[in-house]
This record gives sequence, structure tokens and C-alpha cells, in this order.
Amino acid sequence: MTERTHVCGELLEGLIGEKVKLQGWVKTRRDLGQVIFVDLRDRSGIVQIVFNGENFPEALEVAEKIRSEYVIHVEGTVVAREESTVNVKIPTGTIEVMVDDIKILNASKGLPFTIDDDVEVSEDVRLKYRYLDLRRPKMFNTMQLRYKTSKLIRDILDEKQFMEIETPMLTKSTPEGARDYLVPSRVHHGEFYALPQSPQLFKQLLMVSGFERYYQIARCFRDEDLRADRQPEFTQVDIEASFMSKEELITMMEEMMVRLLKELKGVDVVKTFPRLTYQEAMNRFGSDKPDTRYGMELVDVSEQMLESDFKVFASTVNNGGVVKGICVKGIADDYSRKDLDGLSAVAEIYGAKGLAWLKIEEGQTLKGPIAKFFGEESAAGLIKSFEAEAGDVLFFVADKKRVAWDALGALRIKFAKDLNLVDSKEFNFLWVTEFPLLSYDEDAGRYTAEHHPFTRPLAEDESKLDTAPEEVRAEAYDLVLNGYELGGGSQRIFERELQEKMFKALGFSEEEAISQFGFLLDAFEYGTPPHGGIALGLDRLVMILAERTNLRETIAFPKTASASCLLTNAPSGVSEAQLNDLNLSIQKKKE
Amino acid sequence: MTERTHVCGELLEGLIGEKVKLQGWVKTRRDLGQVIFVDLRDRSGIVQIVFNGENFPEALEVAEKIRSEYVIHVEGTVVAREESTVNVKIPTGTIEVMVDDIKILNASKGLPFTIDDDVEVSEDVRLKYRYLDLRRPKMFNTMQLRYKTSKLIRDILDEKQFMEIETPMLTKSTPEGARDYLVPSRVHHGEFYALPQSPQLFKQLLMVSGFERYYQIARCFRDEDLRADRQPEFTQVDIEASFMSKEELITMMEEMMVRLLKELKGVDVVKTFPRLTYQEAMNRFGSDKPDTRYGMELVDVSEQMLESDFKVFASTVNNGGVVKGICVKGIADDYSRKDLDGLSAVAEIYGAKGLAWLKIEEGQTLKGPIAKFFGEESAAGLIKSFEAEAGDVLFFVADKKRVAWDALGALRIKFAKDLNLVDSKEFNFLWVTEFPLLSYDEDAGRYTAEHHPFTRPLAEDESKLDTAPEEVRAEAYDLVLNGYELGGGSQRIFERELQEKMFKALGFSEEEAISQFGFLLDAFEYGTPPHGGIALGLDRLVMILAERTNLRETIAFPKTASASCLLTNAPSGVSEAQLNDLNLSIQKKKE
Repeated sequence: MTERTHVCGELLEGLIGEKVKLQGWVKTRRDLGQVIFVDLRDRSGIVQIVFNGENFPEALEVAEKIRSEYVIHVEGTVVAREESTVNVKIPTGTIEVMVDDIKILNASKGLPFTIDDDVEVSEDVRLKYRYLDLRRPKMFNTMQLRYKTSKLIRDILDEKQFMEIETPMLTKSTPEGARDYLVPSRVHHGEFYALPQSPQLFKQLLMVSGFERYYQIARCFRDEDLRADRQPEFTQVDIEASFMSKEELITMMEEMMVRLLKELKGVDVVKTFPRLTYQEAMNRFGSDKPDTRYGMELVDVSEQMLESDFKVFASTVNNGGVVKGICVKGIADDYSRKDLDGLSAVAEIYGAKGLAWLKIEEGQTLKGPIAKFFGEESAAGLIKSFEAEAGDVLFFVADKKRVAWDALGALRIKFAKDLNLVDSKEFNFLWVTEFPLLSYDEDAGRYTAEHHPFTRPLAEDESKLDTAPEEVRAEAYDLVLNGYELGGGSQRIFERELQEKMFKALGFSEEEAISQFGFLLDAFEYGTPPHGGIALGLDRLVMILAERTNLRETIAFPKTASASCLLTNAPSGVSEAQLNDLNLSIQKKKE
Repeated sequence: MTERTHVCGELLEGLIGEKVKLQGWVKTRRDLGQVIFVDLRDRSGIVQIVFNGENFPEALEVAEKIRSEYVIHVEGTVVAREESTVNVKIPTGTIEVMVDDIKILNASKGLPFTIDDDVEVSEDVRLKYRYLDLRRPKMFNTMQLRYKTSKLIRDILDEKQFMEIETPMLTKSTPEGARDYLVPSRVHHGEFYALPQSPQLFKQLLMVSGFERYYQIARCFRDEDLRADRQPEFTQVDIEASFMSKEELITMMEEMMVRLLKELKGVDVVKTFPRLTYQEAMNRFGSDKPDTRYGMELVDVSEQMLESDFKVFASTVNNGGVVKGICVKGIADDYSRKDLDGLSAVAEIYGAKGLAWLKIEEGQTLKGPIAKFFGEESAAGLIKSFEAEAGDVLFFVADKKRVAWDALGALRIKFAKDLNLVDSKEFNFLWVTEFPLLSYDEDAGRYTAEHHPFTRPLAEDESKLDTAPEEVRAEAYDLVLNGYELGGGSQRIFERELQEKMFKALGFSEEEAISQFGFLLDAFEYGTPPHGGIALGLDRLVMILAERTNLRETIAFPKTASASCLLTNAPSGVSEAQLNDLNLSIQKKKE
């Protein structure tokens, strides 16, 4: 086939008078009888091409047959447009191409939806015809931004002497953590590989090997019940370094984020990100990934409530609980008693027994069902604690600390959204540090790792690992952006003894630890350097950079909430022969 | 922990007099009583550090405890070495570091093998302790070369406006081609994902979407019985472009290869690679991926044999077969009759009934069991055809063309190796074109695609798809380097009708075609541009660049021939609960 000489979007005035060959899609077609105008689109942009029956009747004849999204090859001459027909909306708007020859490369049926950002289409239809959905400029731009993000990350890490090293996808199942995707082995009867939840073990082994600076943009897999912001397979920017302190790593990541924002978005962000300890983040924002683009911080009024007449609050505090609240500015007139009572549902999701509220009125008075319990002095005290003004509403949760944090944290996010408090052009990074190393899992009756079992305890807390595991803080640091956890980093355990202690704290028997992680424990005995690292969620990073709110918008071929691909119909049934090869039978469906 | 100020390999004379902090591994340690010398290693290189008990007795005391591969932190002063102790073998050989403080960061047990390229270790031990094996300079350098290769490929493709786009790993099983690795779905009863054998379908869909220039360095999976040069998971440089002709793609790939060789190896290769048609490659070299670094080309002597007295040869030709041979220079004296007869085994692997040979003696005479069948004239004719000289040996296979090609092609490779004819510093690229589109699979009783079902037939052969499928040539081009197939490229079918015809030629019913590839056929109806692409085996490319002969040497954590990981013991058994989650039972072991 004849090749194109130019791309549509780069046909500028300098080319006037030149013969060009173009290939692309028919975006729109206006048929004026003896003249047909076509907007021809390729990846680079759009140019207007003109079929004039007077000069080129054969070309016009072909042009009469073409429709939207046909793929055509045209040859013609670049000419200046008349001043009155200049289109200032596109870069090529001052010229057009007079076509003398056309060939239809491929036809197109009528589309299930128009290739246009503004057309409303259900997500299911978009996913079924993803190849058409991706033609829409917004999707194309997001994919391009994703590409530029990963390219820039690679370039930055290359400058910092990091080496990308590929680690296995077919690896060993380690039940710790989320559920593995399993891959049956045909050769080894009854045995399975697991797809990696992260390259964690391998990257640590690469540190044992002395690579010192590793990274990988790695596909990872978790067979979990999906939420809006989860996908069964996801991409992680996985980084690990030896002989690099937490401070060095944090500084490097800050530099990376500053460059990403600057080069991809033209946005300047502060060079050193604020840091909050886990305790402070929870106390102030009710979240370990707080969005600090708006206020509404949590206020602890436990002390004040001890002295109030509201027995429910006072007794909660007396029983070791807390009373915390947030102040939402200026909504008193817009929210009826019914609206406010209805918000209890949000708090109840997190186990709160209720959500109390008080409207602030002129003259420092309170209004609402529980107002009667607060005298003049306690009212003034509350108003002061929240720096509240007339028109504001205070919300309270009286419960265990964890419940109050979670419920008010969620309420805070809800109000930010409902009241449109968030500036989507703002990018607030921060670090959350000093996470608890372990958390107690009531269902399992044992401790689980808050990050993962390889995270190092803070040196000063190490001795408590046997005696008070819940008090041990981790040498961990989460990178948070606009209320999303962008990545989790930590310094790692690199001594066999400490790692064994950690497995013990997690309830592993010695045999279990060895059968699952023996190779890592062994490796630690051959001169393992101090090391640490971080993993960033690439999908989420791109989602935020692209100013989207749904991870699926950042992935070329994503899966639905039930982990299906609507385009290919994966997963699907397989043949008896395939199952027999794998020595597998399918169990009857459970009731 | 205190951070290091420098890396070992960069401590040069300019730093004399400066205080430095270093961290790394003890490579060797020489204990001279009051002075201990240690070669300290990190990723950057080696530096000699000195513990002098006179000045720093405490440091010496610690240094007495350290052993090979201990990880230490030292602080000290860079000093010039005395002229007599300068080590010219290392860049830091003119200086050393007088240590005043040392801290042991981690100890090391005795190693299962020494960290040294020259130590012979069984591959099983190396794979079990891969984290130590990777400490060996050769392995480190290969991993670094691998990284540089993929980084450079990415940079080149970026310059050419290609975008990397990630495609799914959990996708649909398509039984065409090699055996899929399957991944059971927990949510969809009895259904499975498949791990991709390549991103072929998705990259074509991205062409439908208008991305025009896609690439991905993608992990691919094939559940095949493994050979030395196969791994269950492998990495592919996957490229696809729309509106790009075969010639443009070939030129781009040539430029890429030239740059890789130049920038990674300092080797200049010809800018335009030779091209052979499939027929020519088979006829001349008995291989569709010929190594052209040496001669021994196949010669067809069928015509001559018709006239010879050797009935076996003549009747083969009369029955539609061929007689082909190769001439191996100067081996007559070194190979006994028994040696030469023994080579039949090589030919028989490929189905040849035998391997005949003739020694060339002075005076244009032949020697050997079949010499008697050749008169003076036919002897001279043969000698002329092979341009043979006294001392050479001719080998013949009389059989079907395919058998003669394969058997002599293999013999040619064997001799090149045995006689050490190959210059490992030479890099001979070439293209093989005009492959058959289809080949007949006797077992399956149907045609299969020589490349894959999406490869375009040559325009001039398209009409034969119904009538003489075996004669249809493909618009395909394989890139060959030093006898290895580095990659396979082709222009693709982009019209529904032609793709349906292709599926029909492959024996698919209409229902089968639609149930497996319906989404692709549908996509082709919405304005699919002409497109083509190529996929390079990254593991193999790195293997050749690294001058290795085993793919496992190029992969950080490879699997054995039985697809096991000796380090982690993957695959392994999983729990009943995991199987129940997936609704799977394991069948009893077959006898």
C-alpha cells in the first residue's frame, strides 16, 4: 500500500501548495452536492479535506460512499482556506486539502455510540466496545498521560541509578495477605503457582543479591471482592533500595512527585511534603490517608462531655470511649432535621450507634434534639472548641476511638463532596508515618501485619514485640495524595532473628514460617544489607493526575466489579481436555 | 542508621584526605595480625579498606570478627597507597581507606559457593541460592545488560512516537496455538481466565482504537514442554503500528538493532539486513532462521543423482523427493568411517532414513561406502557442485524436501559448533520473508497457522486461500540473529471477511470463530486501519547480546525444565479452603 507522507494534525500553512498523502478516519462529512467536506482524523489531530466534483469527479464519486469512521487514503494538495472559513478551533484550521484521489481502506458500520467525549453512554456498553470507547479524545488522552507517567518515572529512576528487574509472575502461594490468584500446574500433579500480589519477596532477595537499587513497573494480582477503586490486576511502581535511609527514600519520592506534577500537569507543589503520624492523622482527620484540601478537622470533646448533662456522652467517656465531632460550616439553613437525622446512616456503616448533631444559632445558642443537655457555659465551650459560628452544624460520635475516627472521617469526606469543597486542581501530598506494626484481627483471633510481615518495627519499639505487640509502631511511611493512599513504604526487617520474631507475633508456627518463607529466612543469613522500599499504585496515580474518580478510566482493558471482561467475555468455560491436562475437576455449584 | 557518603567504586585519588562513610560486603579479608586488609564491595565496585590496630584498636577488634560477605559500615580517611601496593586491576587501586570506625550491619554464614565467576557450581545449586548466584559479576552484568536493553528499546520507541500500553494478564483462553496457563475464577463458577501467550488480540484492538503506534514489554506465558531455550513465562517486546508499511517497520527495526548493538556492545553492524525468502533460507541453509556466520550451504544434487548409478538416490528423486548435501571442509582425516556413520543419528531425528557421506581424496576421487556408485564424470560433477577439495567430506540426505532441509540444517549447525566455526563477536542479522501462511498438521488433520491466524496473506496469493491453501505465502517477516529467531512480524488481516476466510481455512466452524474471536471480527467492522507489527523475544535478544547460550542466564529468577522454581519451591500444594473457594477438586493421579 502507498504510505502516508504526513499526519493530519501537522498540516500547517508552511505546506501550502504541496502534494500530500494522508490516511485516517472520517470524523464528519458534509455533503453539499458537488462538494463534500470531510474532517479527517488520525492520532495527531484533524484536518479538513475537500472533494470537488468539478475538478475531480471520480474522487467525489467515492467520497459519496464514505461514512463516519471509514478509514481512507487520500492524496491531494494543501491549500489555504478562505478567511471566512478558517476554523480557529483546530491547529490546522487555516488550511484544507483538495483531494484528487481517494481509496477506501476499510468501511465502518453505524457505531453503537458517537466518538465524542460529551456523549453519555452506559459503562457496560463502553466496556463491551472498548476499542471504540478508546477512540474518544478523553480516553486517548488518559492513556497517553498514563504512558507519559510511567515513562517519566522510569527516566527519573534511571537517573537515580535504579535498575528495572523483572520478577516472576508464576510464583509461590503465600496465604498471608489477600487471596491469591492460583495457576494450576500441568506437570506437577495437584500443585499450583500463584500470581504475585506484589514482587515483595523477590525485590528483597534482589537486595540480598546486591543490586542495591531495584525498581519494576509490575503487574500485581489480588483475588478480592472488588470495589470501585479495585481491579483484580493492577500496576505497581515497585521500588527497593539498600543502604538508603528512610529520609533519603522519602526525599527521592518527593522529588519524583514534584517532577511528575510539574512535567505532566504544569503544577508546582511544595518540595517537602507535610508528615503526620498515624495517630495525628486519625485524630485530626479520622483517616490514615487524609485529604487535606479542606478543613472540618475532628475535635475531641470527651473532657467537655464528662461535665455535660448528656448522660449518653458522659458514660461513653467514663467507659473508656471518646466523644469526637466535626463542625460543618454554614449548612444549618440548608439541612432540615430530617436531613441531619438521616446522616446517622453514614456513621452506622462504621459501627457507630448514632450521630448526634447541634445547629449553632445566633447568640451562641444551640438547637437540635440534644441541645437541651447543654447549658450556656457548655454551649459556649463547645462553640469555642469547634471555632463554630451561627449557621454551622456540629456532628458528634460517642464511641470507641476507632469507631469515632472512621465514622467522622467518612462524614467529613461526604460533606466535602456534597458541598463541593474540593478544588480538583489542587494536589496535596503528605506522608503518614508511625503506623501500628500489627493490628488484632478479631475473626482470626490473631495479629495481622498492618502493611506486610516484612515491615521493620521502629527501633525503640522492638522490645515490645513479645510483650505488647499492639503498641509497636512500624518504620513505615505511606504517601498520600488528595485522600488516596498512593503508596506504602517501609524499612524492612533484614535479620533472620527479627523476622522470625515477627512471624511468631503473627501467629506462625516455626514450621509454617519455614515452609512458606524459609528461603527468605535463609537468604537473610548470607549478608543481607539494610534495605527499604515503597510501592506506588500506578493506576491510582494516573487516576488522580487525569482528574478522574474511577480506576477503570485509567486502564485500557479493565474488568468489571465482578472481575469480568465485557469485551472478550473472560473468564469463560474451558474444555474437558484442558481440565484433564491440569488434573482438575469442577465441583458442583454450592447452594 | 548513618548513611554512606560515597560508593566503593568511585573512591578515586581526588578524594585523598577526605573522611568517608562506606557500606558494603566483605569480599576478601587478609589478617596480618595488627593490620587487617579488607576488599569492600558494593554495586559500584571494590575498594581496599585498612584496619590498623596501632591507631584504631577498637576498629581492629571488630574487624577480627568479620568474614566473607558480612555487611559492614565503615568510616575512615582516604589515603594514597604506597607505589609498591598499587593494584592496577581495579579503578580504586591507587588509594585505600584507613578505617577508624566500623559497625557490623549483618553477618553471613559460610556460603554454599564462592561469589566468583570462575567457580564451577551445578545449576541446581545456583538456582536454589539464586540470590547468591546473582552476586556473581557475570550475572550482575547480564541483568544490567538486560535492563539497559529494555531501557534503550523504550527510549527508541518513545522517539518514534510509540506509546506503551498495558494489556490484561487475566484474559480469555483461545485454544489456537500453544497451551494456555489457566487461572480459575472464584466468582464465576467453573470458569477460567488464561494468561496471555502474547498481547496479539489486544494490540490489534488498540489499532482499531486509533493508537497507531503501540508497544509493550510484556510478560507472556506458554504451558509447553520446556526445552533449553524455553521458559513458561517470557518477555516480549511487542510492537504494532497502523498506516505503517512492511518496509517502514523493517527499516525501523533495523535502526533499532543497529543502535542496540552500537550502544550496548560497541559493535557496528550493517544498516540494511539481508533478506531471504523462506524458500531460499530452507534451500540454502535448511533452516528458517539460518546462522549465516559460516558457510556449508545446502546443495541440491537431485538432477545429478537421477543420472547416477546409486539407485536409492535416483529412485528418491523419481518419487518426488530430493537429494541434498553439504560439504564440510577439511575433516576427512579427523573423522573415521565409524564417526561418519554415527552422524546418521542426527539426520534420523528429523525423519531421514539415513545419512550418506563421501570423502574427497586427491585427484578428484571419492571414498566411502557409496563411492563405487559414482563414475569419474559424476564424481567430478559432484565435486564441482560443492566446490569441494581433497580432505572435505560430503553428506547427503535423500528424502522428502522437508526432511532433507531439516536433517542437513541440523547437521550444518552441529558441525559449526563441533568445528568451532562461529565467531561469537559477530552479529549477523537477516530477515526471512514469504513464509507459508499455513502448514498442514497431519495429527490434527487440518491446516494450522505458521505464525498466527491474524497474519495477512500476500495479496497475490489471497485467491488461493480456498483452493490451494498450502501455496499461500504470508506477509510475514522474521528477524533472525545468529541462527536464532529474534522476532516474528507480519502485516495483519484487518477486514472481517478475510479474517473469516482465514478461520475457515484453519478448520474453524462459523460458531467456533465467533465464540472465540467474535469481538475481533466485530471490531473489524468499525473502521479498522491497515496495521502490522512484530514481537521480539527479549530474553533471547539479551542472551545473544550477553554472549550466553542459555535463556536462564538472562532471567533473574528462572524456572527449571520442569517449570519449577528451585528457590521458592513453586509450584506447591494449596489448602483445601483455597480449592473450595475456586470450586475445584484435584483428580486422582493418572497411571
